[in-house]
Amino acid sequence: MSATALIIIDVQQGLDNPAFGERNNPEAESNMARLLAAWRERGLPVMHVRHDSVEPNSPLRPDQPGNAIKPEVFPQPGEPLFTKSVNSAFIGTALDAHLRESGIERLVIVGLTTDHCVSTSVRMAANLGFEVTLVSDGTATFERTAPDGTHFTAEQMHNANLASLNGEFCRVLSTEAILADMA
Amino acid sequence: MSATALIIIDVQQGLDNPAFGERNNPEAESNMARLLAAWRERGLPVMHVRHDSVEPNSPLRPDQPGNAIKPEVFPQPGEPLFTKSVNSAFIGTALDAHLRESGIERLVIVGLTTDHCVSTSVRMAANLGFEVTLVSDGTATFERTAPDGTHFTAEQMHNANLASLNGEFCRVLSTEAILADMA
Repeated sequence: MSATALIIIDVQQGLDNPAFGERNNPEAESNMARLLAAWRERGLPVMHVRHDSVEPNSPLRPDQPGNAIKPEVFPQPGEPLFTKSVNSAFIGTALDAHLRESGIERLVIVGLTTDHCVSTSVRMAANLGFEVTLVSDGTATFERTAPDGTHFTAEQMHNANLASLNGEFCRVLSTEAILADMA
Repeated sequence: MSATALIIIDVQQGLDNPAFGERNNPEAESNMARLLAAWRERGLPVMHVRHDSVEPNSPLRPDQPGNAIKPEVFPQPGEPLFTKSVNSAFIGTALDAHLRESGIERLVIVGLTTDHCVSTSVRMAANLGFEVTLVSDGTATFERTAPDGTHFTAEQMHNANLASLNGEFCRVLSTEAILADMA
């Protein structure tokens, strides 16, 4: 049975910018850190994805301090880092090739944000044939307003997006459930 | 300026199966038909996408009557049809190659369902570099329940997903706005 990779997407300082609005799940980063520690302890594969924005005003541009990965999940030497400039971690990167060369078929995905880069990467991973687990409390998003004016809190956006993904593209599990399964 | 293609995704009989639950926007198919008529009248490019499911019990399997495209948007001879077995219209199909060979850079996307195949295809189209318009009332989805038990009506799922997509992956416009813009 091949190893399961932990993929950590876009956990960058710039996403703390208040311009993004209200965020849910302040525990996301500490949950990611717990999973990362469990993967490292067992020598299981960990892969990092960083968004190098090409938007003129994004705090995630490589020339901005907000591009930096947060300390909770900062890559260790030897852990592959894939950089991207779109939402999907699989477009314009060598992630798919690296996973296939490594014989990895199963992914546990965490990161930011639930409905933008995480959802897009989960969808594409599943459609490329990987078996994906998305960590419900290892991701988070922001409040948003629909084109018709309907406002959704960050928690509503998060849950509605998990509802779209669960069972169709991935199974959604909590940090605790994954750690218990590994123990 | 290159032509804008109308892409119609998975508008198939099998999605009327009551097992999918409550659906929003019963006018979606008639709105798609209005856009399709406008594209055909002007000789603009139209592309159809059909889901040929490989799931054992799906009504969208090619050996099931539910695989058939609904009459409102049934392809005419000469209109390309791309078949797929995953959510994204860009994985396992020649759609991307066909668009690039045709010099098409702008897409108007309609179809079913808002949060599964339409959202996945919109996201990937945008990340592949296309300029995407998603038609708010030319798509629809079903009620769903999040992993934590939160229930969302079909209309809530639809609007939350449009909120995730609008501005990040596409602009969301109504059928009326698109037709007015063409007139």
